[in-house]
Amino acid sequence: MNKQLKLSKRPEGMPDADTWNLENNPIPELKEGEVLIKNHYISLDPAMRGWMRDVKSYIPPVQIGEVMRAGSIGEVVKANNHPTFKVGDVLTGWGGVQQYIVTDGKGYYAVDTNLAPMPTYIGTLGMPGMTAYFGILEVGKIKEGDVVLVSGAAGAVGSVVGQIAKIKGCRVIGIAGGAEKCKYLVDELGFDGAIDYKNESVHAGIKEHCPKGIDVYFDNVGGEILDAALARLRMHARVVICGAISQYNNTTAIKGPSNYLSLLVNRATMQGMVVMDYAANYKEAAMNMGMWMAQGKLKSKEDIYEGIENFHSTFERLFSGDKKGKLVLKVLEN
Amino acid sequence: MNKQLKLSKRPEGMPDADTWNLENNPIPELKEGEVLIKNHYISLDPAMRGWMRDVKSYIPPVQIGEVMRAGSIGEVVKANNHPTFKVGDVLTGWGGVQQYIVTDGKGYYAVDTNLAPMPTYIGTLGMPGMTAYFGILEVGKIKEGDVVLVSGAAGAVGSVVGQIAKIKGCRVIGIAGGAEKCKYLVDELGFDGAIDYKNESVHAGIKEHCPKGIDVYFDNVGGEILDAALARLRMHARVVICGAISQYNNTTAIKGPSNYLSLLVNRATMQGMVVMDYAANYKEAAMNMGMWMAQGKLKSKEDIYEGIENFHSTFERLFSGDKKGKLVLKVLEN
Repeated sequence: MNKQLKLSKRPEGMPDADTWNLENNPIPELKEGEVLIKNHYISLDPAMRGWMRDVKSYIPPVQIGEVMRAGSIGEVVKANNHPTFKVGDVLTGWGGVQQYIVTDGKGYYAVDTNLAPMPTYIGTLGMPGMTAYFGILEVGKIKEGDVVLVSGAAGAVGSVVGQIAKIKGCRVIGIAGGAEKCKYLVDELGFDGAIDYKNESVHAGIKEHCPKGIDVYFDNVGGEILDAALARLRMHARVVICGAISQYNNTTAIKGPSNYLSLLVNRATMQGMVVMDYAANYKEAAMNMGMWMAQGKLKSKEDIYEGIENFHSTFERLFSGDKKGKLVLKVLEN
Repeated sequence: MNKQLKLSKRPEGMPDADTWNLENNPIPELKEGEVLIKNHYISLDPAMRGWMRDVKSYIPPVQIGEVMRAGSIGEVVKANNHPTFKVGDVLTGWGGVQQYIVTDGKGYYAVDTNLAPMPTYIGTLGMPGMTAYFGILEVGKIKEGDVVLVSGAAGAVGSVVGQIAKIKGCRVIGIAGGAEKCKYLVDELGFDGAIDYKNESVHAGIKEHCPKGIDVYFDNVGGEILDAALARLRMHARVVICGAISQYNNTTAIKGPSNYLSLLVNRATMQGMVVMDYAANYKEAAMNMGMWMAQGKLKSKEDIYEGIENFHSTFERLFSGDKKGKLVLKVLEN
């Protein structure tokens, strides 16, 4: 039997527990060319909130009655003449919030768990890491000596953004919620400074840590923090729009950045990105990030919860910020 | 004697008549290397409102007691051993709202009034035209077949933006206030369509005229119109932030674009620009635009008022939209 979490309604504001419905369904027989993946872990990402919205976006919305979309990693336990994958392969892809996946393998790729543990492949070596890598390098176009500010800095994307910027010789300041996360950024990840948005003025913090302004701002949060960053751009600055966690559960209109005319004053650029566009180069990115991890320059931290039943409470941590590193849910039952 | 309009206070909201003070001052003697320009015309531009604000921007603010900054064109009537300019030369530069200018000539250049009349040199062949030229070509990066939307389309910048986009083979839609201006865009300037924001829904108009969305949006106005345009971007669209007329007289915070996350969904770019950055290439732009004017492909229209005393009432037309073409004030007294 396969426990599957299906979307049961379109939430308004912060999703409640009734937003999804946990079902227990039989696993269908494999057709020719299909594999059965026993799912171990799923990735929890702020972007999930957007996928639940019935609007045109970069990816179709999850439909009511469909398994909730999620990045996943698990092991092939059965294969029916699959051309590439065999029993024992560990595959990552968009498996969704369920315990078993029947698939023809499209969009999945095999990973080597001798090099990194499974959760890392849906974190730093998965979509969040890829988002960070291409966002800061290709869109942010960082160069040595740049002052880089990143919000959501202790999160799965932000923590990698900041570490890559450090590797590339930038001065890096992170914005995160709480003293513990800020200490983690500086002491463990080597950030040059951190601003605790829950306990200090972000405006004052940016002024203090970036006295000459910001060359690249990597935004995961939107809202007031985006405005504070815009107010301190340097000439020809780049603002990478990766997400807007602060706005995802809004029931009113999204707060647009009042300070957007700073783009004009500073001849700056604000650009949006979606990681899927860089799929052709994931392999190269994974090689570089794997190397940095092996060299101890790039640290990966996962915060792993257990049990598909606990999806909702784990999901809430994305927005409350009550987590330490990349949020992962183990859906495998021992 | 020299009538000079000086800034007398920092306005809140829409400047009233007391914002400037008209003085009549003697003309100082020329020092070695200086010229005296008898000013004929000054340019009125929405950007003037920004120059009156005491904030860090792309250009220092006009100080209280200083002559109000303005683009100008006039004739050299006296020269004291100037290395380049002589009596009879027609010079354009930042002469300000006054009837005579004493200058060492820095920032001024001579133009040929046999090729175009003086007002055109502070319009289509001056800063507004240069802004349009570099904004749509260098920042907007238009290519043949692009769908280009421009706001403030009947204005000094917007009308040139649209015409250049037509010359480059784009489909061009303009947004302007009133049926007369819209008719002018389509019938006289060759736009493919026009949206009258004073009498129709801009959202509906964009949907109708750009059914497949917008490749390049050139924004002069900000506010609700910027949001409407963002809602209809195509993939990899470019948004050129040239100005925000709708917000310049705000007494409350600027309205940020609520739909800025469309940049993410559509991997689009929003970039600010300031014309001064392109000074090294003005000559090339003037040659191209002059050629297009001679070929009848680029039309220039000025709305000329008279009398330095009428500066305030003319200035108000920038924001009420009560003007037909590039707004110019003749400060020369016959």
